[in-house]
Amino acid sequence: MSLLLFIHSAAASSCSSYLKISSFRFPKHPQIRHHSTFLKLSVTNHFNMADNGSHEEFLATAVDAAKKAGEIIRKGFYQTKNVEHKGQVDLVTETDKACEDLVFNHLKHHYPSHKFIGEETTAACGASELTDEPTWIVDPLDGTTNFVHGFPFVCISIGLTIGKVPTVGVVYNPITNELFTAVLGKGSFLNGSPIRVSSQNELVKSLLATEVGTKRDVLTVDTTTNRINKLLFKVRSLRMSGSCALNLCGIACGRLDLFYEIGYGGPWDVAAGVLIVKEAGGLVYDPFGKDFEITVPKVAASNPFLKDAFVEVLKQTE
Amino acid sequence: MSLLLFIHSAAASSCSSYLKISSFRFPKHPQIRHHSTFLKLSVTNHFNMADNGSHEEFLATAVDAAKKAGEIIRKGFYQTKNVEHKGQVDLVTETDKACEDLVFNHLKHHYPSHKFIGEETTAACGASELTDEPTWIVDPLDGTTNFVHGFPFVCISIGLTIGKVPTVGVVYNPITNELFTAVLGKGSFLNGSPIRVSSQNELVKSLLATEVGTKRDVLTVDTTTNRINKLLFKVRSLRMSGSCALNLCGIACGRLDLFYEIGYGGPWDVAAGVLIVKEAGGLVYDPFGKDFEITVPKVAASNPFLKDAFVEVLKQTE
Repeated sequence: MSLLLFIHSAAASSCSSYLKISSFRFPKHPQIRHHSTFLKLSVTNHFNMADNGSHEEFLATAVDAAKKAGEIIRKGFYQTKNVEHKGQVDLVTETDKACEDLVFNHLKHHYPSHKFIGEETTAACGASELTDEPTWIVDPLDGTTNFVHGFPFVCISIGLTIGKVPTVGVVYNPITNELFTAVLGKGSFLNGSPIRVSSQNELVKSLLATEVGTKRDVLTVDTTTNRINKLLFKVRSLRMSGSCALNLCGIACGRLDLFYEIGYGGPWDVAAGVLIVKEAGGLVYDPFGKDFEITVPKVAASNPFLKDAFVEVLKQTE
Repeated sequence: MSLLLFIHSAAASSCSSYLKISSFRFPKHPQIRHHSTFLKLSVTNHFNMADNGSHEEFLATAVDAAKKAGEIIRKGFYQTKNVEHKGQVDLVTETDKACEDLVFNHLKHHYPSHKFIGEETTAACGASELTDEPTWIVDPLDGTTNFVHGFPFVCISIGLTIGKVPTVGVVYNPITNELFTAVLGKGSFLNGSPIRVSSQNELVKSLLATEVGTKRDVLTVDTTTNRINKLLFKVRSLRMSGSCALNLCGIACGRLDLFYEIGYGGPWDVAAGVLIVKEAGGLVYDPFGKDFEITVPKVAASNPFLKDAFVEVLKQTE
């Protein structure tokens, strides 16, 4: 199974929402108030130089975007929401869209030649293919259902792949004010402090996280609950917090020992988190033992000690 | 099914852990540094007067105890834990015990004639019967598994029953710094601001919370996962955060629409939360439609609109 994903760029995008600029979206960049100004600036040397920035510069830009989007999320979190429906149990809010616009515009402001893949724009404009070019993969609001209900597991997830390899990852929960970051080869951090996966090596002492997803057909629900049934005999307990990206960060900082999710929305849910897990000493893999592929919506993660035993149990539920 | 619970009082308790006093347990009460000092003070008029305090005074005393215990929990949360095992998947930590000692000693310092029921002391000394007398029912650390793993859903739960009626409730999560409080007839509050249950009236748009408990026999696990299976066809999504008291508070502030748990530890898990739900406009009931009894470890909670439909689905899983 694979996803085909649309390619978006500042120059070539056919989706006008990418190019919408307002003072709201750049509250701290008063010079970027108008569409015409944005297009004019987008061809300056400043941006071309930034395109060749270091990984640390990419990280700093992504963190800045995440913090700005976080302000929007934080404000909306405690207000009545204007909710639209994507499906029976899937929601999208105005905040979701505003955050994606903000994050993409911020990144394109700095890196106009980079490619962009995002949940909301993909939903509106169609899927994109992931290429070898530097590509920002963004979930502007992971945990949308939580956001709508006011359950405090929400985050912005921003990942950068270069040559399809996750290279920069930022996951920010603006409600708990937790910022998870990673750069390839440089380790993972929570609010600036290094984090590591747990050292647990027994399934029976492990805390497992998963999600029940949004599909409610009989086959999916039966498969989901049968899998949970089998796992409950093997692990200590089970958590469901409603955010794939935060579950991966939970593995990275050792709050969770085991995580799997099958059938999540797309690569934006995992692009940042997989790097944060790996740089914290963890492993990310296909739940049934194959190699993990970012375009296939199946993921498992743990420390290295637990992988084989975890996959063995998961295989029995395939 | 009912629980028999031991009666404890400062004067009559046979469990020495109740009377252990140290400067650690009263860091802001330097006059209460020694056991002998405590016993001397415990017969002064000050204490007798306080026994007749108002509900608001009881609340203030409970909040003070919760905040002090919260300091201990917060410190331990980020440290390596010295874990003991109560069973295969149940844990108790030194912090758990230290918090119960602190909370009980604090409350007994103010109200020596009141009765006390607590998770840790009951485990050590046996169960107590709930009487009509003013009785503090305390879970010093709800979400012990979360605490051990560093998952941020942990709290102190302090409830006061008078004539077996929940009268004061305090639930404090020292990691997220959220303090839920309620006094009978006076409403519920989160960090001092009034809270209300959600206004959701459709199951299919409702966010459900439950827990998988600690029992891992085939009948319990099968019943648990079959119930989840049935409910997934009826609700929007499912959360498991690992704290019964915080799930009740989630109902009270509208983050969650539906909650049930069957087979939790004891009345200390719900004594505060049920009042916080009711004072926020919610209902607390037996999952299968009977009246809720604080000594029977089965609870469901929601706003009034959802009760009938929720119970109807739950009855199909009995």
